[in-house]
Amino acid sequence: MSLLIVGSIALDNVETPHGNVVHSLGGSAIFTSMVSKNFCKSNIVGIVGEDFPKEHFALLAGNDIDTKDLKVIPGKTFHWSGKYSDYNKAETLDTQLNVFANFDPQLCEDNKNCDYLFLGNIDPVLQLRVLKQMNNAKITACDTMNFWISGSKSKLLEVINNVDILFINEDELRMLTGVHNIFEAAQKAKELNPKLIVVKRGEYGSFAYSDEFIFFAPVYPVRKVVDPTGAGDSFAGGFMGYLASAGNFEETTIKNAMIYGTVTASFNVESFSVDKLKKIGIDDILARKEIIERSIRF
Amino acid sequence: MSLLIVGSIALDNVETPHGNVVHSLGGSAIFTSMVSKNFCKSNIVGIVGEDFPKEHFALLAGNDIDTKDLKVIPGKTFHWSGKYSDYNKAETLDTQLNVFANFDPQLCEDNKNCDYLFLGNIDPVLQLRVLKQMNNAKITACDTMNFWISGSKSKLLEVINNVDILFINEDELRMLTGVHNIFEAAQKAKELNPKLIVVKRGEYGSFAYSDEFIFFAPVYPVRKVVDPTGAGDSFAGGFMGYLASAGNFEETTIKNAMIYGTVTASFNVESFSVDKLKKIGIDDILARKEIIERSIRF
Repeated sequence: MSLLIVGSIALDNVETPHGNVVHSLGGSAIFTSMVSKNFCKSNIVGIVGEDFPKEHFALLAGNDIDTKDLKVIPGKTFHWSGKYSDYNKAETLDTQLNVFANFDPQLCEDNKNCDYLFLGNIDPVLQLRVLKQMNNAKITACDTMNFWISGSKSKLLEVINNVDILFINEDELRMLTGVHNIFEAAQKAKELNPKLIVVKRGEYGSFAYSDEFIFFAPVYPVRKVVDPTGAGDSFAGGFMGYLASAGNFEETTIKNAMIYGTVTASFNVESFSVDKLKKIGIDDILARKEIIERSIRF
Repeated sequence: MSLLIVGSIALDNVETPHGNVVHSLGGSAIFTSMVSKNFCKSNIVGIVGEDFPKEHFALLAGNDIDTKDLKVIPGKTFHWSGKYSDYNKAETLDTQLNVFANFDPQLCEDNKNCDYLFLGNIDPVLQLRVLKQMNNAKITACDTMNFWISGSKSKLLEVINNVDILFINEDELRMLTGVHNIFEAAQKAKELNPKLIVVKRGEYGSFAYSDEFIFFAPVYPVRKVVDPTGAGDSFAGGFMGYLASAGNFEETTIKNAMIYGTVTASFNVESFSVDKLKKIGIDDILARKEIIERSIRF
């Protein structure tokens, strides 16, 4: 099965207590695909400027990530600059949309036929446009953020109404639903029509909520969080990648997908950019999965 | 096996978004024993004033909680008044130590011979006095709070050095160790000599940390948290009660104890005071344990 990933592609400046990087590869489509490629054929949809370094194209090609729908246009690549004083919240220092302001995802025929779709955190208007181009996707999922919840709520609700899975962090879930109790809030989100709500809780793990079950995933106990940028995207990459490889949407598959997402996010936060994701493979992922298994099995 | 519980016994005023109670039964020894009594013979050590209502003595007697070392002296019972605006943090409005200021726990011979000991959150000086009176306890545990970490650190470290299990919430663990990463902090606490660190994370669950393993317990998904007062104590009651009933300190036993603590705390927060704890029995506990099992098994 193949997974289509739509999202940002960025050259980021990031500063954390463990150091900093300048113009490093980032963006939701990158973090997601650099994980999902371990599980299934991964295709990205995005836009970059002519400044986008050749080595990054080579990295994607070397990892068999399809870039037929990665447009290169004159101008500069999307740039985000942020700083983490602690690891719970990034302070945005600068955002330059650049060519991303012209992003209008048009899918090639192959990509319209992908079985699985992950809509990274972008404008709900664009997420909807992609959804409408898909021919017959088995499972569709979206992520979002506070900016769209407050600024484009009706369009966002339309997206949520049309996907199978909503990935959302706990603060955003409370903001979206206006409900404080996190389980009541998940129930409210469930009533917006997705089959599954995946609630991300940072250093506390995550849980999946459906009509049939609730499943809590812990975190992998990372001792040195170098840079949390992309944690949610790399979680989604592990989750959606495994789902696409399994080819069904059963309770056991979803629970395993949650654990794979947990593992892949744990690798991501151990380095800046995709430095760690570049180096790991399925064996590393399986090894951590086993450790997590012991940490919750009783 | 028998469990000895040393802690406060209080008449509390509590206000939460779900209502309020006045002079209701509370205190760490109460919340802990009203849970542990489901698993093992439970004995409390504490002090109350002559105003302590007869019905509360009857409640303890009716639940087979031993009160040989519960002193009644002239004066008023310890009183705490607090308010929860959200459920993460209580605001203390008033504390009247009253007879608790004279608490000097002296154990009867029977209690000196208890196999298991839980030292609730009281002055480390008193915790040490109790520890020294125990004849040959199999497993000893303590809880504490920020007040003692900042005000009586050397005495508290002496307590921690002499118990098998430290129960502590995550903020207090960071305060005790000066380390932000929660797993590094648990490791630092482990080096203070206990065999096991149990880190409580409120609505995010808890984890147990030893030299041999780490174990994450989720929360039971409570939809309506009425009053979080005593959550940590009722967790410890389920944990220590099950441990005492199992009679060993093996990995599987500890993991199950974590889940029992999770379940018993979930019942406690669903009502003010011990209203819910009064009504539940081992069958209710086992039913929720099964639900939790499904929520983490994959």
